[in-house]
Amino acid sequence: MNYPQTFDVIVVGGGHAGTEAALAAARMGAQTLLLTHNIETLGAMSCNPSIGGIGKGHLVKEVDALGGAMAIATDEAGIQFRILNGSKGPAVRATRAQADRVLYKAAIRRRLENQPNLWLFQQAVDDLLIEGDRVVGAVTQVGIAFRGRTVVLTAGTFLDGRIHVGLDNYQAGRAGDPPAVSLSARLKELKLPQARLKTGTPPRLDGRTIDFSQCEEQPGDLEPVPVFSFMGRASMHPRQVPCWITHTNARTHDIIRGGFDRSPMFTGKIEGVGPRYCPSVEDKINRFAGKESHQIFLEPEGLDTHEIYPNGISTSLPFDVQYELVRSMKGLENAHILRPGYAIEYDYFDPRALKSSFETRDVPGLFFAGQINGTTGYEEAAAQGLFAGINAALQCRQLDGRADDFGGSWLPRRDEAYLGVLVDDLITKGITEPYRMFTSRAEYRLQLREDNADMRLTETGRALGVVDDAQWDAFSRKRDAVSRETERLKSTWVNPRNLPAEESVRVLGKAIEHEHNLFDLLRRPDVGYASLMSLDGGKHVSIDVSRETLGELAAPVIEQVEIAAKYSGYIDRQRDEVERSAHYESFKLPPDLDYLQIPALSIEVRQKLQKHRPDTLGQAGRISGVTPAAISLLLIHLKKGGFKGFAGVTRAEVP
Amino acid sequence: MNYPQTFDVIVVGGGHAGTEAALAAARMGAQTLLLTHNIETLGAMSCNPSIGGIGKGHLVKEVDALGGAMAIATDEAGIQFRILNGSKGPAVRATRAQADRVLYKAAIRRRLENQPNLWLFQQAVDDLLIEGDRVVGAVTQVGIAFRGRTVVLTAGTFLDGRIHVGLDNYQAGRAGDPPAVSLSARLKELKLPQARLKTGTPPRLDGRTIDFSQCEEQPGDLEPVPVFSFMGRASMHPRQVPCWITHTNARTHDIIRGGFDRSPMFTGKIEGVGPRYCPSVEDKINRFAGKESHQIFLEPEGLDTHEIYPNGISTSLPFDVQYELVRSMKGLENAHILRPGYAIEYDYFDPRALKSSFETRDVPGLFFAGQINGTTGYEEAAAQGLFAGINAALQCRQLDGRADDFGGSWLPRRDEAYLGVLVDDLITKGITEPYRMFTSRAEYRLQLREDNADMRLTETGRALGVVDDAQWDAFSRKRDAVSRETERLKSTWVNPRNLPAEESVRVLGKAIEHEHNLFDLLRRPDVGYASLMSLDGGKHVSIDVSRETLGELAAPVIEQVEIAAKYSGYIDRQRDEVERSAHYESFKLPPDLDYLQIPALSIEVRQKLQKHRPDTLGQAGRISGVTPAAISLLLIHLKKGGFKGFAGVTRAEVP
Repeated sequence: MNYPQTFDVIVVGGGHAGTEAALAAARMGAQTLLLTHNIETLGAMSCNPSIGGIGKGHLVKEVDALGGAMAIATDEAGIQFRILNGSKGPAVRATRAQADRVLYKAAIRRRLENQPNLWLFQQAVDDLLIEGDRVVGAVTQVGIAFRGRTVVLTAGTFLDGRIHVGLDNYQAGRAGDPPAVSLSARLKELKLPQARLKTGTPPRLDGRTIDFSQCEEQPGDLEPVPVFSFMGRASMHPRQVPCWITHTNARTHDIIRGGFDRSPMFTGKIEGVGPRYCPSVEDKINRFAGKESHQIFLEPEGLDTHEIYPNGISTSLPFDVQYELVRSMKGLENAHILRPGYAIEYDYFDPRALKSSFETRDVPGLFFAGQINGTTGYEEAAAQGLFAGINAALQCRQLDGRADDFGGSWLPRRDEAYLGVLVDDLITKGITEPYRMFTSRAEYRLQLREDNADMRLTETGRALGVVDDAQWDAFSRKRDAVSRETERLKSTWVNPRNLPAEESVRVLGKAIEHEHNLFDLLRRPDVGYASLMSLDGGKHVSIDVSRETLGELAAPVIEQVEIAAKYSGYIDRQRDEVERSAHYESFKLPPDLDYLQIPALSIEVRQKLQKHRPDTLGQAGRISGVTPAAISLLLIHLKKGGFKGFAGVTRAEVP
Repeated sequence: MNYPQTFDVIVVGGGHAGTEAALAAARMGAQTLLLTHNIETLGAMSCNPSIGGIGKGHLVKEVDALGGAMAIATDEAGIQFRILNGSKGPAVRATRAQADRVLYKAAIRRRLENQPNLWLFQQAVDDLLIEGDRVVGAVTQVGIAFRGRTVVLTAGTFLDGRIHVGLDNYQAGRAGDPPAVSLSARLKELKLPQARLKTGTPPRLDGRTIDFSQCEEQPGDLEPVPVFSFMGRASMHPRQVPCWITHTNARTHDIIRGGFDRSPMFTGKIEGVGPRYCPSVEDKINRFAGKESHQIFLEPEGLDTHEIYPNGISTSLPFDVQYELVRSMKGLENAHILRPGYAIEYDYFDPRALKSSFETRDVPGLFFAGQINGTTGYEEAAAQGLFAGINAALQCRQLDGRADDFGGSWLPRRDEAYLGVLVDDLITKGITEPYRMFTSRAEYRLQLREDNADMRLTETGRALGVVDDAQWDAFSRKRDAVSRETERLKSTWVNPRNLPAEESVRVLGKAIEHEHNLFDLLRRPDVGYASLMSLDGGKHVSIDVSRETLGELAAPVIEQVEIAAKYSGYIDRQRDEVERSAHYESFKLPPDLDYLQIPALSIEVRQKLQKHRPDTLGQAGRISGVTPAAISLLLIHLKKGGFKGFAGVTRAEVP
């Protein structure tokens, strides 16, 4: 049957990527259909019950700044919140939350069900509709053909998924869910570059059988409890609970090693590569043979369940080994396993075959997001989903001939967002193992902070149409207050005449000798905003007007003002560097350029460029093996050849 | 791997049968393991979001009287409660509730997770462990062998499940869940008598696309809101919401008939028989061609979702027909289907191959409960699960040599419980279509009421060990209050001297002429307990002491007292009949009796008895084709043959 309604965007998959994709496209006004094999599993957390962390929390805040669901759903479902790296610089500070799985799923489903322009439909997708080389829809398991102008595929671990526990394995999309076998076969027919990855999950434990008195308690941050979304409030949070910590020991490691000969990873049963930075416990014991103990976090899965997620013992060892290794740890001597740990192998597609909008190069209209692009992590998936959803909706606008400022696609720069780093890394470098975000991946990380994700992205989000009125209003008030307060600090001057010396010594550590504005004083490492505002300028100067200026926004506004002052030197320096790079970064390369015919380049570089076909010079420079020297030579070639936009480039502009 | 712990009872399946089985066995102290393919789906309502109804509500109350979970979980999850047949006699009155699916699942899971002696484990079961002819455990999908002294199999629709939508079909245990294919094959190897059944479910609708102003509102009972469990309170209920009613019409029927040629039922794609009393909409249109319209109830699936269950249009017609038929109805002109309706075919096993404990005759230790026995309905499943769980636990006690009053198994009589009717019907008559409960199936239905399910069963439940202290205490107080109040009414006498004539006329309609006790007066059709208590006996006789006697228990106690008075005549008459029948009903037949060698019986009767091997004379009499005359001849044969217990039987005792 051909379904009567035609959609703008069809999203296949209801995980973290699919839900953000569908919500974003629908917010932009695209008529959006979300196809899922099971409405009950929309927003399911397949692995750990937590959101955020260093690099990942940054992505979540960016998704939030663009109107996405993950942060606010976490605020509604989070049972423990912590600020990681709280004592370090603001750039690497990150929010992490444990979520109640049931509440999280409910929060996501509520948003999906209430989103205008979004239709949900439950049925597995077996096939894509292709006309010419363009995708025009998706076909479900019982032959219902939904036509859509774009399709966003977010298949997670479902494509030809196979679960491994020891040397046993079976087909599944996730424990308890059927795999997508027909769709996998269909995608293989399309000859997109495809391979296998694997990921894993630990056994889950019955908290009633754990002796928590033998474990170390790890409470969340309670004063204050952190909030994830820019639109969130601590009062949204359910009851807060602690986690616990136990450790592996020499016996644990012996047990694990004793299972190596029946490990699907070490015996070659699994061909897919696993995530280096979220390794299985056997991988850790194997690679770090000298380490005597690993920390294992016992994380509650919810307020209304005894189930515990032992973070750190992801494993595909045989179940008898899982049983013994769990019970070898302190507090877990009698622990009952509720669900075995397992590894899952699945199809992914080389993201270098994607355009910078995440549209596949070979099948116009078909977008990929999430684990299908070789990533790992809920946050990476959500960010990609939002991104692909936006770009699918933008493409529909362009097909309609509706003008906007984005010209059919949008990609934030690497100095604008971790999302830009993520997408750019994937499409230029590809992956060799499941990709996860780290702050170290962002060369401009000083300005890509959690605290300013809204300042970096919400205006763009508003222009794209993904930011609703309430969020835009709240953001505008905050942005204006930051700007007003910064201006006030910059224009409030103190000098030895209007600031009594004893006040100056009390707050600034010494008397001032000439005139300073408050913003300059705030730059000093040992001067905080609060103490600065406590300066008493007597009758001569009024320093603390923050209450009336800032109102309820005080805390986030002061944070922005303070960070801007303290880090402006570093940030300015980084910005200079960014601007120098940006000059060539965004040079568009001719789409039909035959790199093989550029004699100045080495054969290797010619072949790499021909294969990856970067959109911009910046992307070209990040392809492994393409050196800055090669980029210079390429630039000269383009200039000499009179390619559009390159005629005026001077040698000095090349980095 | 052989799991280190050996269990008493292993329950396979986590639906309504499996959860009650596991909870009941664990309550009895049996070390119980519940194996499910997915912990997230424990207690899932696969079809309609409602519990109870006529006959079914009776079963739920019985499960509750025996300490089961279904009624109290419904009290925690119910968003609309109604008493059906409220204006009819108490025997056919029944409770029915709409449940919020998410809350219901949570209520069941909470009980499972907190039940002592119960372990949960997530993994599909692929095989049974058999030693000799006895089952000794179950083996999961990755080869984990759990040893158990008994196994209760509650496979629902999962055994070789196949979903049909029009002429398309695919393997599944339920929409979104994988089927149990290996286990089905394994059971077939055991050569138990097996065949196929089918059941179906309607498409689900997005409430945002329904024009409810075009539908008739159907509120629940609100003053008071009914309560399901004997341990429940209305304050447990979440917010109450209405349902709505729409109707099929001539166009709907045309659309449905237009799909007959692509119906999997009418074209022979489906071989299994469906439930006659819960038919698909195409079946209704086909069988009742003259009927111009059918009522369709639009039932909310929960408080936090827009999803609507259109009760009455279960269908496996092709999706294009579903789409059109839904939109042909008033209020549904623009309705969006969230999930297609479908039929599912699955394996069931002839329940006549079960003992009266639900243990399979051929594989000692293996019990079956729920749809695998050929039934339909959550309530029928729950009742069977509880029953099989109890009997599995009793068998373990007997294997341990621990004495109890039940001699290794328990079956309530047909005059004791609908559960007795259900089990007895299944094991003696078998099924030709999915079996559901009706009050008409119970010959003793006057005494098998919802209101007295606790009076009928809770003492037995306490003796079995399934009723906990809190329930036992509450029950004992109620039972004692009923008995005290009945005695008080029976011993409080009024006569023309101590009851003023005007009072008598006011309450009883006329002056009394001689002495009556209050219980006798309460028998009168137009005298209620409340009005009787309003009689003012002046100084001479104190009539209303109910407050101090009854306290908080007043309402249910008064209900019992009043029903006992009003219906005692009918009930006594029925009890006489039951007692006459019971005399032969429970005669145990010799297990090794060779029926083929009883010359007085016809060949047909000999063969039927030899095939079914009834446990008791009562069961023998209910085998189709075994007449009362044949029973008489059988009794005489047994008496003449000097079989144990039959020597003293006189001809007059035979019915």
